[in-house]
Amino acid sequence: MAAGVRREGDDAIHQEGNRLGAVWEAGGAGSGFGDAECWASMGPAFAGRCWLCGLPPSPSLLLTHHPSHPPPLPFLLRTRHSICGCLSMDGVAPAPGALPYYVALSQLLGLTVVAMTGAWLGVYRGGIAWESALQFNVHPLCMVIGLVFLQGDALLVHRVFRKETKRTTKVVHGLLHVFAFVIALVGLVAVFDYHKKKGYADLYSLHSWCGLLVFVLYLLQWLVGFSFFLFPGASFSLRSRYRPQHVFFGAAIFLLSVGTALLGLKEALLFKLGAQYSAFQPEGVLANALGLLLACFGALVLYILTRADWKRPAQAEEQALSMDFKTLTEGDSPSSQ
Amino acid sequence: MAAGVRREGDDAIHQEGNRLGAVWEAGGAGSGFGDAECWASMGPAFAGRCWLCGLPPSPSLLLTHHPSHPPPLPFLLRTRHSICGCLSMDGVAPAPGALPYYVALSQLLGLTVVAMTGAWLGVYRGGIAWESALQFNVHPLCMVIGLVFLQGDALLVHRVFRKETKRTTKVVHGLLHVFAFVIALVGLVAVFDYHKKKGYADLYSLHSWCGLLVFVLYLLQWLVGFSFFLFPGASFSLRSRYRPQHVFFGAAIFLLSVGTALLGLKEALLFKLGAQYSAFQPEGVLANALGLLLACFGALVLYILTRADWKRPAQAEEQALSMDFKTLTEGDSPSSQ
Repeated sequence: MAAGVRREGDDAIHQEGNRLGAVWEAGGAGSGFGDAECWASMGPAFAGRCWLCGLPPSPSLLLTHHPSHPPPLPFLLRTRHSICGCLSMDGVAPAPGALPYYVALSQLLGLTVVAMTGAWLGVYRGGIAWESALQFNVHPLCMVIGLVFLQGDALLVHRVFRKETKRTTKVVHGLLHVFAFVIALVGLVAVFDYHKKKGYADLYSLHSWCGLLVFVLYLLQWLVGFSFFLFPGASFSLRSRYRPQHVFFGAAIFLLSVGTALLGLKEALLFKLGAQYSAFQPEGVLANALGLLLACFGALVLYILTRADWKRPAQAEEQALSMDFKTLTEGDSPSSQ
Repeated sequence: MAAGVRREGDDAIHQEGNRLGAVWEAGGAGSGFGDAECWASMGPAFAGRCWLCGLPPSPSLLLTHHPSHPPPLPFLLRTRHSICGCLSMDGVAPAPGALPYYVALSQLLGLTVVAMTGAWLGVYRGGIAWESALQFNVHPLCMVIGLVFLQGDALLVHRVFRKETKRTTKVVHGLLHVFAFVIALVGLVAVFDYHKKKGYADLYSLHSWCGLLVFVLYLLQWLVGFSFFLFPGASFSLRSRYRPQHVFFGAAIFLLSVGTALLGLKEALLFKLGAQYSAFQPEGVLANALGLLLACFGALVLYILTRADWKRPAQAEEQALSMDFKTLTEGDSPSSQ
């Protein structure tokens, strides 16, 4: 990274790199040190030192002075306070408050949903097999494991593995999605094969339409995500523009998966129970409870994903390579960011 | 607002007021001027002037120097660049790019969903009436109008009315939710009354469980939201802590409403069509398409809500009264913020 090398003449766009701030929300059960960060000044005023503690930050953090700025204002580069370690005893990023408890609750809820699906199929639907009338039951179990539990966990990877490198979290995120997709594919083959053997029509219900949409979008999202974030060809600016879309569509596809599971559950209940459903049959009550737990799992994963102070903090070297800074100093170039 | 009056002795917490930055994402269809903001420096270095253009910002923006900071670093207060008008010709906040087109699409989609629900009930279910077997049909129509279309629009108020005062947008937001709730209440009464007249059981299905949950959460969310944001008693810090929860639960209740509508649609189809559903009956195809459009409306509203650069910019006077600054200078006190 060549500090001091800037492309001049692009007028005010270059000013996007100038950011300074100090945030320290200490105390309060909700805040903890999750938001703790500081800004390292690189200008003449407070050169090369952390704004909060005065210690020098990582030597890779360098910036130059913008010629159009008033001289007394130094050029500044945002960096995590953990670089100088003055907020935590061990020099690593502080813990994000209640996040571990919420993640633990999500796993408990997700495993309960999987176990309840298994119990429902085992107790009321005769269990699971590939070569018999029980082949249909492979479908709901695989979908709940793949497109609900594992997909949800894949979305949480960037919140849980906060201290791993960005590349590692991306690989784990991508692999979990591959597992989820393969398991869901088995579930999809099971139901189409079952329909074929029984001579049933395919793809006539709202559940099946939503399910097919989820499947196509899920595969597309994985392929585009892989080519942008793991395949080493996409540029910084492309990644930066696509990232918010990737995050939104990831959450939307997950929520549509949960909704599709609820539709499938309802379909299975109405086909088998019919008018008996209104007599509060044990199977109906169990499946309704399972439906509510599925919705709760979806809501909890969404909550963990969207809480601003639980977002994965950038590591020191990622900060130094942050897009707008890199654009300022080197122009648009690929990296593992 | 008394500039210079600070509560000392609360150590580093006070540092949260010190923020400086300059962001100007010009060019690019996606960015526009939506994020344009600057930071007014109030310290000795660049006193009282906008960092980008050098013009003086609003006179209400004042800050003092923190004694624990190195002298050359001025105290700085974040402010929208529209205060000094150097980014827009007329001195108001710039337009947020493609937002109007997305909002227009959401309205088109929402009205299509309402019209299709009416068409489905009119063509295949005999229309709507209160005192006959058609009373049931009041239920889906009211729920789609109230808990899907109007609730979705209520969530979009803060994105659409960007230049109104915060109080006005809050009142419109609250009123739209009242309309939505009243219409949904009529839909709820219709189905319970219909069940009673016919001697049907209540609340046995997953659709009804989800629906009751939505209704209770919706009422609670409105009451808590009203008491925090419209009733003039809640403190700054309470509002600030509750706001993210209000936003999350608002979106979650809306999505659960859409999911519940899909479950109800599916239930209505399976009860009436039964095995005929798999023969691609016109009613089934129409209702499936309606279900997909409901899901698309939910996803589009969620997209508009979550796009960071479409969030409502704070007005100049709101910035001057921003919570952390007000906490720093005057302590925790209620306001219309």
